[in-house]
Amino acid sequence: MLKPLGDRVVIELVESEEKTSSGIVLPDSAKEKPQEGRVVAVGTGRVTDSGEKVALEVSVEDRIIFSKYAGTEVKYQGAEYLILRESDILAVLG
Amino acid sequence: MLKPLGDRVVIELVESEEKTSSGIVLPDSAKEKPQEGRVVAVGTGRVTDSGEKVALEVSVEDRIIFSKYAGTEVKYQGAEYLILRESDILAVLG
Amino acid sequence: MLKPLGDRVVIELVESEEKTSSGIVLPDSAKEKPQEGRVVAVGTGRVTDSGEKVALEVSVEDRIIFSKYAGTEVKYQGAEYLILRESDILAVLG
Amino acid sequence: MLKPLGDRVVIELVESEEKTSSGIVLPDSAKEKPQEGRVVAVGTGRVTDSGEKVALEVSVEDRIIFSKYAGTEVKYQGAEYLILRESDILAVLG
Amino acid sequence: MLKPLGDRVVIELVESEEKTSSGIVLPDSAKEKPQEGRVVAVGTGRVTDSGEKVALEVSVEDRIIFSKYAGTEVKYQGAEYLILRESDILAVLG
Amino acid sequence: MLKPLGDRVVIELVESEEKTSSGIVLPDSAKEKPQEGRVVAVGTGRVTDSGEKVALEVSVEDRIIFSKYAGTEVKYQGAEYLILRESDILAVLG
Amino acid sequence: MLKPLGDRVVIELVESEEKTSSGIVLPDSAKEKPQEGRVVAVGTGRVTDSGEKVALEVSVEDRIIFSKYAGTEVKYQGAEYLILRESDILAVLG
Repeated sequence: MLKPLGDRVVIELVESEEKTSSGIVLPDSAKEKPQEGRVVAVGTGRVTDSGEKVALEVSVEDRIIFSKYAGTEVKYQGAEYLILRESDILAVLG
Repeated sequence: MLKPLGDRVVIELVESEEKTSSGIVLPDSAKEKPQEGRVVAVGTGRVTDSGEKVALEVSVEDRIIFSKYAGTEVKYQGAEYLILRESDILAVLG
Repeated sequence: MLKPLGDRVVIELVESEEKTSSGIVLPDSAKEKPQEGRVVAVGTGRVTDSGEKVALEVSVEDRIIFSKYAGTEVKYQGAEYLILRESDILAVLG
Repeated sequence: MLKPLGDRVVIELVESEEKTSSGIVLPDSAKEKPQEGRVVAVGTGRVTDSGEKVALEVSVEDRIIFSKYAGTEVKYQGAEYLILRESDILAVLG
Repeated sequence: MLKPLGDRVVIELVESEEKTSSGIVLPDSAKEKPQEGRVVAVGTGRVTDSGEKVALEVSVEDRIIFSKYAGTEVKYQGAEYLILRESDILAVLG
Repeated sequence: MLKPLGDRVVIELVESEEKTSSGIVLPDSAKEKPQEGRVVAVGTGRVTDSGEKVALEVSVEDRIIFSKYAGTEVKYQGAEYLILRESDILAVLG
Repeated sequence: MLKPLGDRVVIELVESEEKTSSGIVLPDSAKEKPQEGRVVAVGTGRVTDSGEKVALEVSVEDRIIFSKYAGTEVKYQGAEYLILRESDILAVLG
């Protein structure tokens, strides 16, 4: 298992096709394009300057969209993951 | 549904034409130009360094103007949205 | 009406001529030059890291001078405005 | 009257000549050179991240020296002023 | 013994091969690639702006993955180590 | 008298020669070289984000070494001074 | 004596040779290389934004390794020292 640290999450990529059930389709544009993923593991949260731990907003199994160039790719036990900071996550699909 | 994280909001673009009812018209100038949108969903707010959550000032259905180059475009279930941070919103039209 | 967010203000430009009653005249110099405006609307204030809201120092109808290249131009219901952060305001004329 | 905002002050320039009573003379050097001024108005102070207002250390009539390239020039009712942040003031002459 | 300061950790590199038991294999991609290591020593934690010490999340013997270009190499008593900040650690393998 | 603001100090330069009693001699090296001075006046201290004033560690008459390129030169009543921030002071000689 | 300010320490360099008793040997690599030193004096600690003084983790006589390009060289009473911030120290050897 991959246990991310701090405010990081481990996600699996969800290929965004025009026919996926969640229906994310990226428009043609020069703007930054997000990608879709599913949360596999979440960290315990960041610690603020006043010493408080802030739990993450996302949970395991959440479908999310995130900034395209964010994160670090990891291949672990044959599967591919991406490790992101929660701040790279734009929205939860629900 | 798109549920934005933290201090983010999901908006629909409102095309700014000289004849729209809200009446936003952009002047001819070299300055940064804002755009108009309608809020579709709001995050639960950012967490300050002292661990307090700060609710957003904008609400669903608010008409807003925002910095032109801000945000990330998303197409979701056939419609196009923009995900912004609240700090990219300049003013509410009301 | 334009309701600015956070520590922003909406102003109308006041043309600085050598004969205006307020008497702002810009000297010939290579330094940054300020401009004059009148406050039309003020935000509810910024929220500090400790979660406190700080009200603005300026009020509607204040005559102000501000950094020349600051702000975003907006044309709304036929009139032109500028949306600034309070930190771009140098002084109130009074 | 010019009422500066936050931690700003309004000053009048004092020409530094070798014969002024205060006796500031700038040495020949490649280092940044300060200038002399007299405080004409002070702001109410900056607000810290914990929401406290910090009064300025300088007072009206103080003779000060400040960083040469700091501030914004303003001509108001026929006189020339400079608006600085208190952090641009190096020392009070007294 | 190497006792790292603050939020630093000392790790031994684990060579990532396709046949290691932990099974980390790096995918072919232009993205930043992580590396695998084992924690040998941990610091006592960073001190926040409010003066609280925040203990590290990782412990000695943890298998971790970290940002490839992070850290400082040290050879000590014949063995090679890497000293990282905890923020360079992406996840614990467990 | 020069009264420095905040966390600033006014110093007189002490020429570093190989025969001074304090014995500071700069080695031949490409690294940043410090200079020696004597404290002539100290500010009342900086105000932290939580609104507390932090008194300076150095006192009038302290012999100090400081970063070579730091500070602003001032000639006042015929003498030359340097105004530094306390953070530019490396150590007190004592 | 050299009394460093704030979170600074004064160290003596320890030449890293392959035969020193502490056994630090730098590997051949393109990464940043640390150096070894012995602590000669420590400051009283930095003051956090909340006004608390944080004592240093290192003590006089500690053998340390630090970032190679950190610090300022000083020659004092015939001996050579380096003044570092504690954050440039990677680990204590013990």
